[in-house]
Amino acid sequence: MARNVLIIGAGGVAQVVAHKIAQNAQEFGTLHIASRTVAKADKIIESIREKGHSVEFTAHPLDAMDSNAVAELIRKIDASIVVNVGSAFVNMTVLQGCIDTGAAYIDTAIHEDPAKVCETPPWYGNYEWKRREACEAAGVTAILGAGFDPGVVNAYARLAEDEYFDKVESIDIVDINAGSHGRWFATNFDPEINFREFTGTVYSWQKGAWQENKMFEVGREWDLPVVGKQTAYLSGHDEVHSLSARYKDADVRFWMGFGAHYINVFTVLQNLGLLSEQPVTTAEGLEVVPLKLVKAVLPDPASLAPDYVGKTCIGDLVKGTLDGKPGEVFIYNVADHKEAFEEVGSQGISYTAGVPPVAAAILVARGTWDVKKMANVEDLPARPFLELLGDLGLPTRVIDATGDHPL
Amino acid sequence: MARNVLIIGAGGVAQVVAHKIAQNAQEFGTLHIASRTVAKADKIIESIREKGHSVEFTAHPLDAMDSNAVAELIRKIDASIVVNVGSAFVNMTVLQGCIDTGAAYIDTAIHEDPAKVCETPPWYGNYEWKRREACEAAGVTAILGAGFDPGVVNAYARLAEDEYFDKVESIDIVDINAGSHGRWFATNFDPEINFREFTGTVYSWQKGAWQENKMFEVGREWDLPVVGKQTAYLSGHDEVHSLSARYKDADVRFWMGFGAHYINVFTVLQNLGLLSEQPVTTAEGLEVVPLKLVKAVLPDPASLAPDYVGKTCIGDLVKGTLDGKPGEVFIYNVADHKEAFEEVGSQGISYTAGVPPVAAAILVARGTWDVKKMANVEDLPARPFLELLGDLGLPTRVIDATGDHPL
Repeated sequence: MARNVLIIGAGGVAQVVAHKIAQNAQEFGTLHIASRTVAKADKIIESIREKGHSVEFTAHPLDAMDSNAVAELIRKIDASIVVNVGSAFVNMTVLQGCIDTGAAYIDTAIHEDPAKVCETPPWYGNYEWKRREACEAAGVTAILGAGFDPGVVNAYARLAEDEYFDKVESIDIVDINAGSHGRWFATNFDPEINFREFTGTVYSWQKGAWQENKMFEVGREWDLPVVGKQTAYLSGHDEVHSLSARYKDADVRFWMGFGAHYINVFTVLQNLGLLSEQPVTTAEGLEVVPLKLVKAVLPDPASLAPDYVGKTCIGDLVKGTLDGKPGEVFIYNVADHKEAFEEVGSQGISYTAGVPPVAAAILVARGTWDVKKMANVEDLPARPFLELLGDLGLPTRVIDATGDHPL
Repeated sequence: MARNVLIIGAGGVAQVVAHKIAQNAQEFGTLHIASRTVAKADKIIESIREKGHSVEFTAHPLDAMDSNAVAELIRKIDASIVVNVGSAFVNMTVLQGCIDTGAAYIDTAIHEDPAKVCETPPWYGNYEWKRREACEAAGVTAILGAGFDPGVVNAYARLAEDEYFDKVESIDIVDINAGSHGRWFATNFDPEINFREFTGTVYSWQKGAWQENKMFEVGREWDLPVVGKQTAYLSGHDEVHSLSARYKDADVRFWMGFGAHYINVFTVLQNLGLLSEQPVTTAEGLEVVPLKLVKAVLPDPASLAPDYVGKTCIGDLVKGTLDGKPGEVFIYNVADHKEAFEEVGSQGISYTAGVPPVAAAILVARGTWDVKKMANVEDLPARPFLELLGDLGLPTRVIDATGDHPL
């Protein structure tokens, strides 16, 4: 029986998810999207219509911070797959709604507590993994971190494990956005979430333990396909935690590309205290959270899409041994901002984040990934996911001993 | 008969003014200081006591935006000299209070309308000079812009006119602060006033007309006494207007020294819209004026004084001809941040701004400058002012054909 699907969230990534689900409507039953502001969901449905898709799609108002409201909506529309691409603050309540109703759960990033900045590892261990037993007991499929990074890059690591090495020695995930939005400065995601990633300690898993650095302390120049030479900096990221749990003996590092201009603007704002979550009081007595004002003056990330040009390159450099012989493989995807906008009305960053959870939803619907328990992407078979992603617009390429070739 | 003096304002410059007036109490009758927040005035009087001055000094609460309240206080304490070092927004109401009561008026900067940023020239013509006839009719002495710049630099120009040239061809005022406050970033004055100076068009008087440039567009390296080689940028400043009125055929330019770090921080804040006076609305619906938040996160300029070290050098390079022969003279002062703090508890920038209006007040009290009309500093005899300033801690030096020597 076809499974009804519910998208939670109505931002830039949700727009991609909704478009991709509409394009693949034959995989599902009825299609739904819920948002606190239902008008935003309506707008996404309208943009799907404008692309000529005639599928039925229903918008619902929802306070996703209320797990009972989530469960009630799931029951009402008889959804059995929930794709959560709402704010990072709603993971635990949406997951609870799924556990209470038996629906499969898919998200793209770890849960965050709005009151805490940059929590310490183990990130998944702080929230999601505490619900592992509950998922297994309820027979609920919960796929965590099924965006691009985390998500596809976890599958890249698993592919290297499955097809290249019997021992993985290091995983270096490199995320380069060589695109240009033409603005003086802008963040690609919600500035609040974007800056929170970089204001705290940078954690990496090396030599079997968590290592701590400051942001922009450790940089390395990479020479990557299509985007060329780019400097990327050691950063903390969700998947470093889950991958380090599976590959305890490997070094796991995440490298994010930043231009000198981004780093300069970030450094000025950070050093002046303008990225703080703690309210300050103006001379006039007004209490203001500086980061919320910075968000208000920066361009809306969604507004960047029409002018965004250039490519992203995200991949894993995995080193390991096979029968004692050392080797390395670089598994990667290149995406194009302009092509993404033409297809789904979003820029490439949202595109790479939004297509993978749809692939995951299709694999759950088909049964391939319907594992009836909680899993991170590297715990699941990588090849069906990566092959399906190729069909959906995010082809995987591999540089190994035989050269640079498609998966 | 000794003349009672009233200081309006209780910021960093007012602190210097109050200390210097206390040091020279024999020149005046009773001493008074008024501020919206009377506790700030009390604190200044306390700091004078701590320096061992036993003079009587009385603090008064005052809303200086209300000219009737100003006049009422002047009458109550029988003040006949008012030194206005309050916010730039109160000039016109304080001046009116003086006109209404016959008290002499002294200020250090042009009037500003809080609702307007960077008004176009003629600056004095927009507000103060419209009251010239009223001052003359009432026989009120009103000395405008009697700080360092404007103020002392205007007297330097007048000195060059009086003692060096029969024709002044150019006046380049150069303001270099080579001091260091040890903070990552801070402004030396109220950030609101400081940034407002640089967010608009830069006006200079060249070839007999107003020229327009952008801030940081025109830079020049200067090699100055004590502070050495320093880059300064063409900036708009009050005295360019009044000097251009007196020296119509001369080029009049103001150069402000900035380090690359200051320019970078300014540029980031400016380009992001964080120096705007126009409120923006956050996602949570809060209306915030970005500049007021920036002010709230930056260090309080008064807090910089204890750690401030290094020197300032401010001077006029005046070129002209005498009997047809071309020549040039550089007239300047070097001040020391640490010495200023030890003497009056303020940093050097406040010191150089606060000592000159006290010299002006003494010259009014002595009758030398009690001209019974409105005047800018260059309209008044320069030598008595500059000689008195030397006694008060701001000695003038001159570089001319005979070398570098005291005035």
